[in-house]
Amino acid sequence: MLTYSFSDIGSDSLYEYLYKCIKNDILDGVLTPGNRLPSKRSFAKHLNISIITIENAYAQLLAEGYIYSIPKKGYYIADISTSLTKSSLPFVTSPEPEQKEISYFADFTSSQTHPDTFPFSLWAKLIREVISNDSSALMKNSPSGGIFPLRQAIANHLKQFRGMSVFPEQIIVGAGTEYLYGLLIQLLGYEKIYAVEDPGYQKISAIYKSNHVQCYHIPMDQQGICIEQLKEVQADIIHISPSHHFPTGIITPISRRYELLGWASDSNSRYIIEDDYDCEFRFMGKPIPSLQSIDVMEKVIYMNTFTKTLASTIRISYMILPKHLMKQFYQTMGFYSCTVSNFEQYTLTRFLQDGHFERHINRMRNFYHRQRDLLLDCLKNSPLSSRITIKEEDAGLHFLLYVDTLFPDEVILKRAKVEGLRLSSLSQYYFKDCSPKEHTFVMNYSAIHPDHMKEAIDRLCKIF
Amino acid sequence: MLTYSFSDIGSDSLYEYLYKCIKNDILDGVLTPGNRLPSKRSFAKHLNISIITIENAYAQLLAEGYIYSIPKKGYYIADISTSLTKSSLPFVTSPEPEQKEISYFADFTSSQTHPDTFPFSLWAKLIREVISNDSSALMKNSPSGGIFPLRQAIANHLKQFRGMSVFPEQIIVGAGTEYLYGLLIQLLGYEKIYAVEDPGYQKISAIYKSNHVQCYHIPMDQQGICIEQLKEVQADIIHISPSHHFPTGIITPISRRYELLGWASDSNSRYIIEDDYDCEFRFMGKPIPSLQSIDVMEKVIYMNTFTKTLASTIRISYMILPKHLMKQFYQTMGFYSCTVSNFEQYTLTRFLQDGHFERHINRMRNFYHRQRDLLLDCLKNSPLSSRITIKEEDAGLHFLLYVDTLFPDEVILKRAKVEGLRLSSLSQYYFKDCSPKEHTFVMNYSAIHPDHMKEAIDRLCKIF
Repeated sequence: MLTYSFSDIGSDSLYEYLYKCIKNDILDGVLTPGNRLPSKRSFAKHLNISIITIENAYAQLLAEGYIYSIPKKGYYIADISTSLTKSSLPFVTSPEPEQKEISYFADFTSSQTHPDTFPFSLWAKLIREVISNDSSALMKNSPSGGIFPLRQAIANHLKQFRGMSVFPEQIIVGAGTEYLYGLLIQLLGYEKIYAVEDPGYQKISAIYKSNHVQCYHIPMDQQGICIEQLKEVQADIIHISPSHHFPTGIITPISRRYELLGWASDSNSRYIIEDDYDCEFRFMGKPIPSLQSIDVMEKVIYMNTFTKTLASTIRISYMILPKHLMKQFYQTMGFYSCTVSNFEQYTLTRFLQDGHFERHINRMRNFYHRQRDLLLDCLKNSPLSSRITIKEEDAGLHFLLYVDTLFPDEVILKRAKVEGLRLSSLSQYYFKDCSPKEHTFVMNYSAIHPDHMKEAIDRLCKIF
Repeated sequence: MLTYSFSDIGSDSLYEYLYKCIKNDILDGVLTPGNRLPSKRSFAKHLNISIITIENAYAQLLAEGYIYSIPKKGYYIADISTSLTKSSLPFVTSPEPEQKEISYFADFTSSQTHPDTFPFSLWAKLIREVISNDSSALMKNSPSGGIFPLRQAIANHLKQFRGMSVFPEQIIVGAGTEYLYGLLIQLLGYEKIYAVEDPGYQKISAIYKSNHVQCYHIPMDQQGICIEQLKEVQADIIHISPSHHFPTGIITPISRRYELLGWASDSNSRYIIEDDYDCEFRFMGKPIPSLQSIDVMEKVIYMNTFTKTLASTIRISYMILPKHLMKQFYQTMGFYSCTVSNFEQYTLTRFLQDGHFERHINRMRNFYHRQRDLLLDCLKNSPLSSRITIKEEDAGLHFLLYVDTLFPDEVILKRAKVEGLRLSSLSQYYFKDCSPKEHTFVMNYSAIHPDHMKEAIDRLCKIF
């Protein structure tokens, strides 16, 4: 009869150990298909352990299919025809690590939130309140578009802050705009032709490509995206930031906006995705009204995110669907779960409802204003001052810095890296011809520590 | 000269009000393209307001493109050729509400977490700790696959709990498995042929369809998915739950597992997505080992989720990529931001590291065990007891209830609804022929309040 020693049992229970012994003998071919295992009673007696232990081990082997049972006859070894060798480790060498992040003295490309500017204690207090007051709501599955109170609070905010009138039902909340783009492609169609701005944020076209849809880069003039070129490539969906284009800062004027709406209204398949990612941070005057607010033909899908205003590591964004697309969304995609956890949805709801968000935005706008002024000051008082031109400094978290130099951008970027500075050039945001755009740098000042600013500009001067 | 009255100014500032007045006159055609606006100085004098106010109003109109300036000459009305009418409201009727959820006395289809079982105060304590100790880490953008400590903690858990050896780098964290399926399609390819189990969870094939990939339903026999049929449809990717199929409860035996691995190894384009959604809740014996743990050919993509074990409203899932797919992911899709907020990633990390998760799983397993026993007890002591057969009650959060009846499933489900019970029938999970599967109901007992159980079964008896 089968015999196993229980001397090396380690931390396993008796039945687990016995199960492993038999399993290994089956995998190693020691026990062959069709052979009968000892009866529970005799096996227990033979090994001097309880019948229960044998029963448990057989039950596990049975569940996993290593053995089968024939009623009133007993347990038999199953046929596991396999040429694959058993291994508990899929591989033993360590995989190559992900690309390690280099640490910079000053990163002028990052829009990461500065830890000093996030209202941690307030946020912690709101979470605590949510957990103690809303615990049963917290466990109730959110509708696909997000919990209703959050969408109501967003609608109220948009009404007050952006003069936009939308119904909470039109608002779809998701874990970041990147995720929402994916949903939109599913909603609008994979066969459609998409178009993005050139220059533009590279990630947007990367997402369209990763989703396997046709995506064109359309050049911009001083007023925004060129409509003639849109028509040429027969685009259906355009993805634009008319209120503050990144990185050029262009504000699409009202005339071009109406032209764009006119273009969209010419065909049922056409839509405009309005990415309003940083409307909150205009330093002078009122925020530029959204394209969505003058759209009477249900052609504009509005997107915005709390990752820019609150923290880049809190993943909450939303889109506003025109009424007919909203209906289509609920019908065809309402089965999707909302990707934002209830805990954060309810916390953000309170943050909005209690007026904290508005105060936070104002604080952040002042913070970024100071950051900009500090950076401008450092530049003006630097040896570079006579060779630079600043453009588009009225809004957002960056401006354009033109430097009169003969060095190609590539060289500048490499030298900057050596100095611990991370820079990006305007030319990097162009997909097609960009030669006339050399020597202009996109200076994102949001993540630079104020104490580092002067030293960062000293280092910048060294480069040129 | 233009004249506006400031008597109805409301809550607007002077410049905002003036800006709106001029804008409306431009949109209404009162001010026509090419006309010159009054000079700032004379306009200010005329309206008896400060020049600054005029300047601010003009600046806003200029930024939005309603007017343009000619240096040393002045400001002119821009040409806004539009046939669209202005409207501040995209539409005035309220949109139809989303489908309202009906409230049931007992919902046997829900796997929503019961508020009593979630460790709220512990979770709140951990969030508080994370906020006070890790605030700067909280603001640092997470790598695409999730923060490293969480992936390390998951790898440790899998090692201890599932006997799986994986590197943290292979683990990709995302906001729910639904989201991860979408990423996987981008990684594996839109041109591939996908296959899911029939019967099966309808959402999975809905997701594949929404992502516009070809997806077949493959019948199952007593051992799991039928390989012959897989070959017939030339499937590349199969999506299965070999350790506990929903809703049949079938455990794919080791022989079929090796056959499946053999099938996958026959072609470079073939992969198996192993959805291990409820491996933690086996009541008797050890958890069934994962298919991933015997895969030596890098053919299995393992998926699991904390939404089943922790709370359905906390959206954290993960997938484990084979080494070569992991590399491909970082190269082609590493630009994606992680969809789970840092706050929840760090909180879950502590929950895992400190052993809370294991204790929580044990508590939940006991809770579900009691729920199952209570439901079985109620059924046995009911007038229905002689007409029912229970199947697959050893694991997970549901079992199958066969009732000897002549009523079609449809009738039963409707009657149940009238009684405040939400039921689902096994036949509803079949995509193709399901006639022989009538009269079997999928009884998910996880969300039923224990105090409602007896009454729920009394009502169930009334139906038959």
